[in-house]
Amino acid sequence: MADNNSSSTEADSSTLMQNRLDRAQEALEREGADALILFPSSNMGYLSGFQEEPMERHLFLFVTREETLFLAPEMYDEQLAAESVISTIRTWSDGDDPTALLAEIGGELEIASGRLLVDDTMWALFTQDLRETFPDATFGLASEVVDELRLRKDDAELEHLREAAAISDRVSEAIRGLGEEAIGMTEAELADAIEQRLTAAGGEGTSFETVVGSGPNGARPHHRHTDRQIERGDPVVLDFGTRVEGYPGDQTRTIVFDGEPPADFENVHEAVLTAQQAALDAVEPGVEAQAIDRAAREVLENRGYGEQFVHRTGHGVGRDVHEPPYITEGNDRVLEPGMVFSIEPGVYLDGEFGVRIEDLVVVTEDGCERLNRSPREW
Amino acid sequence: MADNNSSSTEADSSTLMQNRLDRAQEALEREGADALILFPSSNMGYLSGFQEEPMERHLFLFVTREETLFLAPEMYDEQLAAESVISTIRTWSDGDDPTALLAEIGGELEIASGRLLVDDTMWALFTQDLRETFPDATFGLASEVVDELRLRKDDAELEHLREAAAISDRVSEAIRGLGEEAIGMTEAELADAIEQRLTAAGGEGTSFETVVGSGPNGARPHHRHTDRQIERGDPVVLDFGTRVEGYPGDQTRTIVFDGEPPADFENVHEAVLTAQQAALDAVEPGVEAQAIDRAAREVLENRGYGEQFVHRTGHGVGRDVHEPPYITEGNDRVLEPGMVFSIEPGVYLDGEFGVRIEDLVVVTEDGCERLNRSPREW
Repeated sequence: MADNNSSSTEADSSTLMQNRLDRAQEALEREGADALILFPSSNMGYLSGFQEEPMERHLFLFVTREETLFLAPEMYDEQLAAESVISTIRTWSDGDDPTALLAEIGGELEIASGRLLVDDTMWALFTQDLRETFPDATFGLASEVVDELRLRKDDAELEHLREAAAISDRVSEAIRGLGEEAIGMTEAELADAIEQRLTAAGGEGTSFETVVGSGPNGARPHHRHTDRQIERGDPVVLDFGTRVEGYPGDQTRTIVFDGEPPADFENVHEAVLTAQQAALDAVEPGVEAQAIDRAAREVLENRGYGEQFVHRTGHGVGRDVHEPPYITEGNDRVLEPGMVFSIEPGVYLDGEFGVRIEDLVVVTEDGCERLNRSPREW
Repeated sequence: MADNNSSSTEADSSTLMQNRLDRAQEALEREGADALILFPSSNMGYLSGFQEEPMERHLFLFVTREETLFLAPEMYDEQLAAESVISTIRTWSDGDDPTALLAEIGGELEIASGRLLVDDTMWALFTQDLRETFPDATFGLASEVVDELRLRKDDAELEHLREAAAISDRVSEAIRGLGEEAIGMTEAELADAIEQRLTAAGGEGTSFETVVGSGPNGARPHHRHTDRQIERGDPVVLDFGTRVEGYPGDQTRTIVFDGEPPADFENVHEAVLTAQQAALDAVEPGVEAQAIDRAAREVLENRGYGEQFVHRTGHGVGRDVHEPPYITEGNDRVLEPGMVFSIEPGVYLDGEFGVRIEDLVVVTEDGCERLNRSPREW
């Protein structure tokens, strides 16, 4: 990928982050909360520009209504200064006790007895520390404030998501093109082939562990891949994606590489495709998320596959490959332009095969745009 | 990788898991705790055989002194039955409220007002739910019980760790062999080359994001890789690993592919190598973890690089690439045969370059065995 490091881009990115922080601080005030306490997560990346994997060392971002501050291991000092928009960085060294610094910062920011919203994915190891260090505080989740900001994607985010989807499409077509060459390959070998193509096409690693579910393995919705060899006539569920600037692709196709599929496969595939299209057609601003789930579910129930559709229809996609809005019964969240989510109904026949078809969509002013364009046929 | 699926291996593996569960249940009793509540984590993998990435759906393993039980999304039912040794699986469907089932299970297991040890990496999203569902319970961390079990690796674990280390060694030598070919490659391209070789050598993905820190980028201990091109004379920090049966490799070498390194590089490299060897020589049963840190630190302080060695000397390695025992000042944990950890001193000169050298070791009856054997020269 071209990495445009011109200073105007840096300035844009810094303004973008500052805007996000401003909106988060306004939301804290509105919600009656005193601080966000984030640890390495997509929320931290979204609000500061610094994205890291969770780690066992104390690395927290404090966002109060007025201030922002990093508590970090000394070894991250330079990197935080370079990659984040936060200028106050308080460090501790291996061998120091980070909870002492935590208590000190709590006092300075005057949040020790406040309402603290911790990162939804913060480890118990750290929430336990926070509860012990601030026994008079009350605790909530950062999502109460940050989800609303992250739900609607801005143009830069949509551009990355489109590019990630385009890479999925290209790799999907290339893998489909293997045809009978795929027969005899193990699921693991096919997963490798997919992942190498994703990287070669400019992607950053994988969005999640690649799924290659052949034959009966396809009937496990979250099967990854094994040493099972793909046989002639096997339906194969392929669910994969890569990231562009941290934003993931997520697409599923169910393909028969060669030979005759099982007797009822064509019916099932057609039912799933119809359900997926019905859900796609239902997407527009003003509709509740659960209505999209119902649209897909109704089709499959009418075809007699309601019991075999064992999961929700989709999930939001952004910095996290699973994030709000969840497309599931019970979610009355109203869709708005700029929201991005997957639509992925599936039918799973125990011991036989599975079929799932998944595309990402962005809600537009009058409907939706499908981010994935590759053929959905088997 | 050869995947020996003979039924005797399966029986062995099932017995192994049952032994681990038995020991965990004994430890619960000894520690006065009533239950472990695990979510998808290395602890869950270690105790049940089912290893998954953290997810936003409620998937918990309950281990009480007498019973074991999974609470899981319906879609995981078949997979849990196949991959884990736990036979009681209570499922919920998308659209159900999993906390109602949680309360029910808490009542049945009689743990609602007990002392509950939650997974150290459990998300705040779930610990918050547990606290709301069981307001009379007290909470602690699973590590209080599970760490002791996991600290000493069994023979099967050591075999996987040795194989993962051997793959790191082979790839390390192949990459070193690039010589002047590496000049002009970007860090990202070199990282790709490393990762492709790790997979080709039989590894499962990467243990962590591959580090290629060339020139000044090497001075950031946790730099990953960028589009910076490697220049003649650049010291390049290469820190990478892959997994075998879930067990990771983790090795660092600092290499100059071609040309003359900066003036003080040779001194720094020699100092770091001497520090690393001093730490290796200090490892034996009965010694405290912090003594290993001190051995490395003393060498670097004597050479005037104490301030530039900004992190601990090492970390345990097992199912997690960072786990106890941590080789750091303040850790008086006494080393025992079967413990595995990294020894990785480093010196970081801001804006110039960094040097880090890392090997994994297992404590033996009378010293240690270096799992990595590849040359440490630059």
